[in-house]
Amino acid sequence: MPELRKDPIIGRWIIIATERGKRPTDFIVEKNATKGGFCPLCPGNENTTPPEVLSYSGSAGHQPNRPGWELRVVPNKYPALVIEGNLNKEGEGLYDRMNGIGAHEVIIETPDHHETFTTLPPERMRKVFWAYRDRLVDLGQDPRFRYVMVFKNFGAAAGASLEHSHSQLIALPIVPRMISSELEGSLSYYKYKERCIFCDIIRQEINQDLRVVAQNELFIAIVPYAPRSPFEMWVLPKRHASSYLAMDDAHFTALSQIFSECMRRLDKCIPGVPYNFVLHGAPLRSQPLEHYHWHFEIMPKLTMIAGFEWGSGFYINPIPPEEAARFLKEASI
Amino acid sequence: MPELRKDPIIGRWIIIATERGKRPTDFIVEKNATKGGFCPLCPGNENTTPPEVLSYSGSAGHQPNRPGWELRVVPNKYPALVIEGNLNKEGEGLYDRMNGIGAHEVIIETPDHHETFTTLPPERMRKVFWAYRDRLVDLGQDPRFRYVMVFKNFGAAAGASLEHSHSQLIALPIVPRMISSELEGSLSYYKYKERCIFCDIIRQEINQDLRVVAQNELFIAIVPYAPRSPFEMWVLPKRHASSYLAMDDAHFTALSQIFSECMRRLDKCIPGVPYNFVLHGAPLRSQPLEHYHWHFEIMPKLTMIAGFEWGSGFYINPIPPEEAARFLKEASI
Repeated sequence: MPELRKDPIIGRWIIIATERGKRPTDFIVEKNATKGGFCPLCPGNENTTPPEVLSYSGSAGHQPNRPGWELRVVPNKYPALVIEGNLNKEGEGLYDRMNGIGAHEVIIETPDHHETFTTLPPERMRKVFWAYRDRLVDLGQDPRFRYVMVFKNFGAAAGASLEHSHSQLIALPIVPRMISSELEGSLSYYKYKERCIFCDIIRQEINQDLRVVAQNELFIAIVPYAPRSPFEMWVLPKRHASSYLAMDDAHFTALSQIFSECMRRLDKCIPGVPYNFVLHGAPLRSQPLEHYHWHFEIMPKLTMIAGFEWGSGFYINPIPPEEAARFLKEASI
Repeated sequence: MPELRKDPIIGRWIIIATERGKRPTDFIVEKNATKGGFCPLCPGNENTTPPEVLSYSGSAGHQPNRPGWELRVVPNKYPALVIEGNLNKEGEGLYDRMNGIGAHEVIIETPDHHETFTTLPPERMRKVFWAYRDRLVDLGQDPRFRYVMVFKNFGAAAGASLEHSHSQLIALPIVPRMISSELEGSLSYYKYKERCIFCDIIRQEINQDLRVVAQNELFIAIVPYAPRSPFEMWVLPKRHASSYLAMDDAHFTALSQIFSECMRRLDKCIPGVPYNFVLHGAPLRSQPLEHYHWHFEIMPKLTMIAGFEWGSGFYINPIPPEEAARFLKEASI
């Protein structure tokens, strides 16, 4: 059983993923081998993944775990956390730990092995965003979970171990540190200004028009003012909402359009660039929050996290965000 | 001039290092080329680095910036921050920024191109630790600086762009987020218990003896209870001290011995492993703090920081620290 452990000084949690247990020598030549060979995510190989928890297909008579799907969600075969068990929290002297209870799922975004999130047409990307919603709703009914982190790794350098286009989600029994920091920071601002800091950022970005990459009626994509990585982008809904689940049908369409545009602009600037993206929203089952605002963060993998970044929590970014935004905006797509 | 910018939501600072400015296409094939070729850190090439700010040599008549040195500290030729200028802080709507004032130096640990921090004998490593001290004292006299982050990147995968053994330091006009978090976390504990949390950790680790890698009279090396990375180690002084500058001569000897032992144990477990280490201590010019405790954190580079880690601040570690400690302790060196 994996274990969650808390650093007693700064409260950072880590997962000891024993299912992936290794001896020291196992690390020596570890390389991601994502190209070629057998693909467990391709149609016809459904029996090599755990049984699906969700699938979408165009035809009414589609059988589960059989070819014919357009999108498929399956439990991760090598999960960081496991779904069965109780949430036992216990101390060990001054330390805290709990059972590694959680869910770890893979969203297979397309049956086509050669399609990427960049080449996926917006109307098909829309289904991926719906799948996130469906899984968030379902996992939110499990009272053991407090947060579901949805994310995507693209390219071996960004941590993808399979080439076939997919995203992942991890349901967690605690609200992760990054989200708590955002919740706390935006709450302090709200207490002082009685306004949502993200709404204020959107207003300032539209007025300054220095870091806006794309917008439509419902969404805006910006390079943030203090980006950790070159070409980092955030995609935010223009209308205030703290949870991803607040989106209506029109939002899904608009989100797919702007997200697809961002991916194509990024790929035009730096073809094939590895990247990660993450969904940040309010914790599961929270009331609508006036101070918090859900959004996506897209992080191209172009710089190295080395000693200085580890030690300080500071990031060094070689491109001013205004320049990155200009490159992205001017890319012809 | 580089710029420091603050994320308005969580207060994370980043450095826009314009001296390293790049166009998008510059990133495409960027790879660290650390092997072979001309080495600017080797003796005889002193004129290819900026003039040294410190050097140690065995002979009294040694000329600055000439061969014959045992250790040499020079400004980084491609600094993330620059030393000249005033600290102008300014707002831009709801955003904050300041001039990128700071120091960025390279500590050339040995004249021998083929020596590593692992093969460096403890009595020579001692000089490296003295150099950190000398530079901390000197830079601490500049009232613009509030923190000096000392760190080392070893191996291209850990961010080293030069093969010749060296560490670095960056003097900053603000206390970095990671240090503030440690200061705040340890202060909360102190307020509740009236004890230093690090001292309590040392006591518990000695009693449990599950994660201790090495110890001598003055220092202890442990795998922390909640390590971010496999084989992460912390080296802490047993006697309470908040600042690195509190070390006396005996401490330098004991530190070099235990640190060298840790490096050799790590290299025995995973030969040639890339790693980072960082020095964490109280901010410059602070009074001795009862709640904080200086230490080194050594982070082997064995896992990938991907979407989940970026998005959550959580880390997934495939080896329980008790097992890692056992491997390290049992390695025959």
